[in-house]
Amino acid sequence: MTAKKSPSHPPEAAVTIGLAQMEVLPGEPARNGARMLELIAEARGKGIALLAFPEMCLPGYLLGDMWERPAFLRECEAWSERIVAATGLPGVAPIAIVFGTVIPDWDHLGEDGRVRKYNGYIAAKDGKAIRHPGLDRPYGIKTLLPNYREFEEPRHFHDARKLALETGRPLESLLEPFTLDLDGRECRLGVLLCEDAWEDDYVQKPFEILGRKRCDFLLNLSCSPFTQGKNEKRNRMFSRKVADLGVPLFYVNCVSLQNNGKTLYTFDGRSTAYGADGSVRTEMPAYAQDVLPVSVEWRGGKADIAAGSSGAGAEAPGNPAKRRIAEIHQALRYGAQSFLASMGQDRVVIGVSGGIDSAVAAALYREFLPPQNLLLVNMPSRFNSNTTRNLAKELAANLGCLYTEISIEESLAVTKAQLDGLEITSTDGERFAAISLAGFVMENVQARDRSSRILAALSASFGGVFTCNANKAELTVGYSTLYGDLGGYLALLGDLWKSEVYALGRHLNEEVFRREVIPEGAFTIVPSAELSESQAVDEGKGDPLIYPYHDRLFFSWVQRWNRATAEEILAWYAAGTLNAELGLEGVDVNDLFPNAPAFIRDLERWWNLYNGIGVAKRVQAPPILAVSSRAFGFDHREALGRSFYSSRYLKLREELLAGPRKA
Amino acid sequence: MTAKKSPSHPPEAAVTIGLAQMEVLPGEPARNGARMLELIAEARGKGIALLAFPEMCLPGYLLGDMWERPAFLRECEAWSERIVAATGLPGVAPIAIVFGTVIPDWDHLGEDGRVRKYNGYIAAKDGKAIRHPGLDRPYGIKTLLPNYREFEEPRHFHDARKLALETGRPLESLLEPFTLDLDGRECRLGVLLCEDAWEDDYVQKPFEILGRKRCDFLLNLSCSPFTQGKNEKRNRMFSRKVADLGVPLFYVNCVSLQNNGKTLYTFDGRSTAYGADGSVRTEMPAYAQDVLPVSVEWRGGKADIAAGSSGAGAEAPGNPAKRRIAEIHQALRYGAQSFLASMGQDRVVIGVSGGIDSAVAAALYREFLPPQNLLLVNMPSRFNSNTTRNLAKELAANLGCLYTEISIEESLAVTKAQLDGLEITSTDGERFAAISLAGFVMENVQARDRSSRILAALSASFGGVFTCNANKAELTVGYSTLYGDLGGYLALLGDLWKSEVYALGRHLNEEVFRREVIPEGAFTIVPSAELSESQAVDEGKGDPLIYPYHDRLFFSWVQRWNRATAEEILAWYAAGTLNAELGLEGVDVNDLFPNAPAFIRDLERWWNLYNGIGVAKRVQAPPILAVSSRAFGFDHREALGRSFYSSRYLKLREELLAGPRKA
Repeated sequence: MTAKKSPSHPPEAAVTIGLAQMEVLPGEPARNGARMLELIAEARGKGIALLAFPEMCLPGYLLGDMWERPAFLRECEAWSERIVAATGLPGVAPIAIVFGTVIPDWDHLGEDGRVRKYNGYIAAKDGKAIRHPGLDRPYGIKTLLPNYREFEEPRHFHDARKLALETGRPLESLLEPFTLDLDGRECRLGVLLCEDAWEDDYVQKPFEILGRKRCDFLLNLSCSPFTQGKNEKRNRMFSRKVADLGVPLFYVNCVSLQNNGKTLYTFDGRSTAYGADGSVRTEMPAYAQDVLPVSVEWRGGKADIAAGSSGAGAEAPGNPAKRRIAEIHQALRYGAQSFLASMGQDRVVIGVSGGIDSAVAAALYREFLPPQNLLLVNMPSRFNSNTTRNLAKELAANLGCLYTEISIEESLAVTKAQLDGLEITSTDGERFAAISLAGFVMENVQARDRSSRILAALSASFGGVFTCNANKAELTVGYSTLYGDLGGYLALLGDLWKSEVYALGRHLNEEVFRREVIPEGAFTIVPSAELSESQAVDEGKGDPLIYPYHDRLFFSWVQRWNRATAEEILAWYAAGTLNAELGLEGVDVNDLFPNAPAFIRDLERWWNLYNGIGVAKRVQAPPILAVSSRAFGFDHREALGRSFYSSRYLKLREELLAGPRKA
Repeated sequence: MTAKKSPSHPPEAAVTIGLAQMEVLPGEPARNGARMLELIAEARGKGIALLAFPEMCLPGYLLGDMWERPAFLRECEAWSERIVAATGLPGVAPIAIVFGTVIPDWDHLGEDGRVRKYNGYIAAKDGKAIRHPGLDRPYGIKTLLPNYREFEEPRHFHDARKLALETGRPLESLLEPFTLDLDGRECRLGVLLCEDAWEDDYVQKPFEILGRKRCDFLLNLSCSPFTQGKNEKRNRMFSRKVADLGVPLFYVNCVSLQNNGKTLYTFDGRSTAYGADGSVRTEMPAYAQDVLPVSVEWRGGKADIAAGSSGAGAEAPGNPAKRRIAEIHQALRYGAQSFLASMGQDRVVIGVSGGIDSAVAAALYREFLPPQNLLLVNMPSRFNSNTTRNLAKELAANLGCLYTEISIEESLAVTKAQLDGLEITSTDGERFAAISLAGFVMENVQARDRSSRILAALSASFGGVFTCNANKAELTVGYSTLYGDLGGYLALLGDLWKSEVYALGRHLNEEVFRREVIPEGAFTIVPSAELSESQAVDEGKGDPLIYPYHDRLFFSWVQRWNRATAEEILAWYAAGTLNAELGLEGVDVNDLFPNAPAFIRDLERWWNLYNGIGVAKRVQAPPILAVSSRAFGFDHREALGRSFYSSRYLKLREELLAGPRKA
């Protein structure tokens, strides 16, 4: 049943709805509350009849277990009361508001045995919270609580489904629009909180239920983190549903940086008004802190977004791949800047190797840091080529920031002299073994010397932090040294595959700085840790990771919806479909590995690292700024353990190793 | 309605139930399944009619997001089928089994949009899974999914409540006992999975519902991690409920070490048989891998545990405080040993300072490591006293293990020469600042030199791992150096308050080794990092933490049920009830702080560290072995952010600072 627009009717009335795309500071109700009071005061002057705030705009959203502190809940409650009261000031223009916040129910317990809490919303006018007709309480509550990826709402919040089950009432009866006088017109508003409108995977459908209850319009108050492709998906899904229901919808999302300790998320706003026909009528820019007034008018008794409000909802220019990198860039920039600000930090030290990862990190930070607040450090040993040393220096010159070179040779000599050949004995002098610093042990000594000795001390004295420049491919298999290049305050590029780091580098040169700040050599040189003679870049030797093959292989383990394991990979290899399954373009896996034994050796090497030492390293890795559909940390959860090989894998492996692979 | 025992009736029949307290290897269905097949074969020879396995004994339980791998689910399913088939071998004694495992429902989706999964159980006999009469499926499913502390079952599993809501059937109708022929007697078995029997905080009560459905006996299959005091709580709760229902209950728990990446849990077994009167009739020892046969007999048509099975359920000897430390010790020992084994490691390097934490860690590892596999390293600078150096050496001599001393002076001199006074310039030579290594910067240089330079290289060459010896008080406020003493493969003592570390040390000397392996001086010396002249132990100078006051203060923030914040602490201080609220004995907070400003200064110092840099350090800290009611990591979740001070705190603070505190 699709409701048709009736353009032939003259407009009967119009009211202005304000979408308050505010910046939310997680865990700071006093600062968020004060900002809300300012926005309410400003909105009165703009003729806004209803100001809609995002979900959880008062407390913040990703707060760990902060919800278990009664003092925090009381503080949020006190601020809710002040905000409700602010709609009732005598002698000023009336205004209605709706905002998302935590609602403690002190008389009931949640299933954790603590005070019951709802992810809820309050609609208020004339200084009073409006009673929700379905709940008969002065607030509404969320129905669908996401519990995947970084989300864990049911850990803390009760919801409408549990309430329905325990009261024996049908869920439908709990979901009701409420009635609000806006500029003299009785309006029926249906309010959904974020996931309530992402109902596809749930048996219960709040969007559908509420949308069928004769609403004038729907609000979706959200606290929705940025993920690549999510806004496009939302527009497709919401547009279809809105068109089906024939009721206009306002999506109000916050701007924010919030975290689960291990993983940081940006909230990109992009608040959107959908007309009754499902079309995107206006859309706010990413990460912009602003209030957007949107006019709603009635024709033939049906509400819709007024014509004048349309046209602003354009997609960013460029092809999809470029749009994607531009979005990632926005998220990283907002995220890094906000994270530093949240810690009261404004100086950054970056160890620059001459390679692409550290170069991209340096350029990103230089975007918002003044040159004297950014210090690049090159720390050569005898294994570092002049090629990379010059690239590092050139980068610093291009960015105009601070730069220094500190050799690690002398310190390595001390360590070598102290430990290499050291006799280990029991206290009664019995000799047990001699220590030898060779091979990968000595490689790691170099990496730790750089980060734990030099960068940590340098950044502390400089009054700032130092960065971790690891990318997602390296993090997947632990191809970095713990307390070495895996150290740092934040892994800003830790959710980017190597190919995305390159693309971001191009984007920075071409679209952001519009000149070559990252030297061309950083793009073209072979990626190398330069920790031994076997990694000499000038001889074309470098890391054992083969891009883009390993990027795509690791992607299939981490980000593929039906997550691949060694079993699927080997089955596809045997079936000759691996190139297609991984989405490899211009690369043939059969060119990379001469035969099945070589393929299996490589597969098991990285699969074991991913499931083994890779997990152990990620446990102690810095926080990661999430931009993908699956980021390491609280999004992609994992346990320390052994590699999993299924019986089917082992059987197939045996078959493949027994005979030559059939072409 | 309490069912009475009828001792006057003669026994009518008896069957033997086997409680299979097996060791579960997380994520290894093939190894667990093979072990189950062995146990089933052995049980046949012992006349066991029904062998009951723990919850999730096939896949394991704490597996991160491993549940999202279809290959893993298929492997578990295939093993379930083999195990069911094993009950039907021709020509051998019949046996029934019940075991917990993951049940994929490939035809339906869960709320994460992935294949639906249940935390379920399968009862089988004669090679066939028995149909569950409530579900009409060949398995039963869990009703209550815990979602607090380290638990996050609803993230992955569907449950009986959701099924009731979506099918419109009352929950009661889904929870049914099933009927099983045991030695020729038709028995009605009610099966609960772990949390199903911990129903107090839930509106729905599976224990009550199932227990009222004329069961002969109840089974509670569990995968329940060790936590201090949990077994006592279980016995109180289960005994009361069983007595009320008048139905005997078997609690079957696994032995295991499982983890969420950041936090490790031991599963202590302690499988228990409760008689129909609620009494504990027999209980298996902690961490013992064994099958306990328990005889059930019928008198007057009522089943109960046979008299001969009673008497084994004694509490461990000693006073409660000693029992508690003994339990912690068991958990740490099993945990450390299993964790090393799971990584294929058998050599450990420990940096020993002469203080209590590293000494306790060394003694613990020495319990199960041969002397030549344990290497203690003392790494003095000029700030280290002969007192502590001698204590470290004495410890190694007492333990008979390997020992070496490596000075950090030379390396510190290199770092000082390279960095202290270093001029920082831009690439065009403009001078910006000079680096200075002084104060806490130089203290941290020392700590990092020890761990990241020496211990990391030494342990790699030695072929082992090095430990983190931080305790919970230090972890709470980040009183340790990142990449320094906070480095290591595991923080074995990271869930023990300082007072518990001392008590554990006494326990090791007195009850475990029964001689002074930890030198008395390690107990009596002032705790000190010895990183500067201001921390000279021989002058009684040491760490700024005041024990036991700060232990108890931090406990109130981390482990108190209604978690205290700065607000509660200050309110209690003002009201004169702080000593009592914190449970301080023999210490008066007014003796520690001369006045309100001094008290507030100390409170805010640690509160800010706990909420600020402490969180950042914990994000990069090693895994912690959990033994308390709240361990850092996946149990105590937290976000990076600012300290929270409520309006009420700020008001009270202002009042207290304005005038002298009233006595």
